[in-house]
Amino acid sequence: MAEPVKLLLQTLSGHIGPRPPVWIMRQAGRYLPEYRKLRAGAPSFVEFCLNPAMASEATLQPIRRFDLDASIVFADILLIPHAMDRGLHFVSGEGPKLRPLVQGEDLSGLEKSWSLQKIDAVGETLERVRAELPDHVTLIGFAGAPWTVATYMVEGGGSKDKWQSRLWAWQNPQEFDQLLDILVHASIEYMAMQVEAGAEVLKLFESWSEGLPEPFFEHFIIGPAKKVVEGLRSRGITVPIIGFPRGCGMLAARYAKETGITAIALDQSQVGSWFNENLPKDMVVQGNLDPAVLRVGGEALRSETDRIIKGFAGRPHIFNLGHGITPDTPPEHVKMLVDLVQGK
Amino acid sequence: MAEPVKLLLQTLSGHIGPRPPVWIMRQAGRYLPEYRKLRAGAPSFVEFCLNPAMASEATLQPIRRFDLDASIVFADILLIPHAMDRGLHFVSGEGPKLRPLVQGEDLSGLEKSWSLQKIDAVGETLERVRAELPDHVTLIGFAGAPWTVATYMVEGGGSKDKWQSRLWAWQNPQEFDQLLDILVHASIEYMAMQVEAGAEVLKLFESWSEGLPEPFFEHFIIGPAKKVVEGLRSRGITVPIIGFPRGCGMLAARYAKETGITAIALDQSQVGSWFNENLPKDMVVQGNLDPAVLRVGGEALRSETDRIIKGFAGRPHIFNLGHGITPDTPPEHVKMLVDLVQGK
Repeated sequence: MAEPVKLLLQTLSGHIGPRPPVWIMRQAGRYLPEYRKLRAGAPSFVEFCLNPAMASEATLQPIRRFDLDASIVFADILLIPHAMDRGLHFVSGEGPKLRPLVQGEDLSGLEKSWSLQKIDAVGETLERVRAELPDHVTLIGFAGAPWTVATYMVEGGGSKDKWQSRLWAWQNPQEFDQLLDILVHASIEYMAMQVEAGAEVLKLFESWSEGLPEPFFEHFIIGPAKKVVEGLRSRGITVPIIGFPRGCGMLAARYAKETGITAIALDQSQVGSWFNENLPKDMVVQGNLDPAVLRVGGEALRSETDRIIKGFAGRPHIFNLGHGITPDTPPEHVKMLVDLVQGK
Repeated sequence: MAEPVKLLLQTLSGHIGPRPPVWIMRQAGRYLPEYRKLRAGAPSFVEFCLNPAMASEATLQPIRRFDLDASIVFADILLIPHAMDRGLHFVSGEGPKLRPLVQGEDLSGLEKSWSLQKIDAVGETLERVRAELPDHVTLIGFAGAPWTVATYMVEGGGSKDKWQSRLWAWQNPQEFDQLLDILVHASIEYMAMQVEAGAEVLKLFESWSEGLPEPFFEHFIIGPAKKVVEGLRSRGITVPIIGFPRGCGMLAARYAKETGITAIALDQSQVGSWFNENLPKDMVVQGNLDPAVLRVGGEALRSETDRIIKGFAGRPHIFNLGHGITPDTPPEHVKMLVDLVQGK
């Protein structure tokens, strides 16, 4: 029997099909009433992420509703610091909080605390999801990229300008490299485990790559991403890897060319025509609808979807948002988007 | 007697001198102890901005300490909504707050409330500063750009992702255009008044231009900036105009070419070599040291300053930060930076 066609994998292998595959960042999430109901049954967000029954159900919810081409495992980009005992918890309306890491702190403590076992429930989630996914849907695993995860660890949560992390990195790049290397190592182990559990594609989320000068970006973003990719490849892992350096402007070209990633995900400010001129013709791109347009729907959604598809024509392209879907988005707009991309 | 040489004006006229002129965004501000002392004597931040004795003193403080090539009038980018009676006030640790503007609200009320007289104290501040500035120091006036000011008015203050403003603009572009046009008109009046009062250069601060798709940026950022520039020119105002579309990535090239500005200010993520390839050779650039590097000082400050100057060599270049100086920066680092740029 022939293998079922997985459009996302085809596109990631460089094939240009009749239409782009489509999935949505944060497609399992609060905009879905069934998600909110499920989530209400868990004591904390971390426990929710690490409960394979709940997390697999959350992962599958959007797949039951919409004809999406990919499913991304429900988890959080901060599970690695959780597995380093950094006191990860979520404060309603404020987001994640962690015990801040300070300059001069003994970083070897992180390595000692780190244990993949603390988060291997994500593997079980992947196995459960994989067993239930329709044949044409590709399963994606992911991790936060080292710089982004480090900023949360240093700031003790989300922050406007990642000030302490930037100061630390400029002041003491050797020590900061050590921190990033610890995260690189953990990311490789964590992502390798996800592939073993059934992930067919990996994605590296560099959510905080805006506002950084080129030498900084080269050293603290491109460098660690390259190490993660090489580490995975040296373990014999061949699955496609999508990198998402959000907000990095024209530095995306260097990221795409130098990290070894298979595909680059673009935020909504990235300009299709520019990439067509500045990226190798066979580089796969993913993106990049403004989540505000998905929230608004209607004519704006129609024209922007069309513009984006045309903008990346002639290049392998995965349709997605430029950032995660927001909780206020009506699920019907997602249906409309998927239909638009599929030419229905 | 010959006119004194003003290096900033020379550079803005396209001349490449022996070194770039240098000034610092937010150079009058909380990092200076004498500023904090002065500010403590004012009942509110708005009253401080609109008190010519205090505001001119704040403007002049950094000029007395450092050999800067420009002085920017001490004011706030939200004085225009203040002059539209939007209830501007500043909450310590939170920043500006205003009465939020909602979709469907009668926008003509803004026009009726608007009166330049409510903020013409800024003109008196400029006159006082101009009278005291050393001959070689250029005086800069400024305003917030329409989109940026609109986001504060709609969100009721600063916000992470300008969500309500983006939704409004996508949902009802005609109405949003009307809002921006009101701000364009006010900005022209306000900036023209500043020139009359002695400003020799104008700067338009588009602080929130990151994360916007190209058609949005074109319509709501480039369009209004062009109208402001044309409006000033049609009044016979010929002073150089610096535009600062912060965080806009490769869209900076379109902004520089299409708005009619004299110079483009770049945030720290903008790459010098890219601009050399993508901007007309005579376009003046300003920037773009990471404020975190100024905070850190030492070798990082030395090497980054050197890299930036070399990166823009062969083009008229004004040295500045990529964003405002932060309150935790030691004033000695500013002295070090000015000396570095001046080759001392």
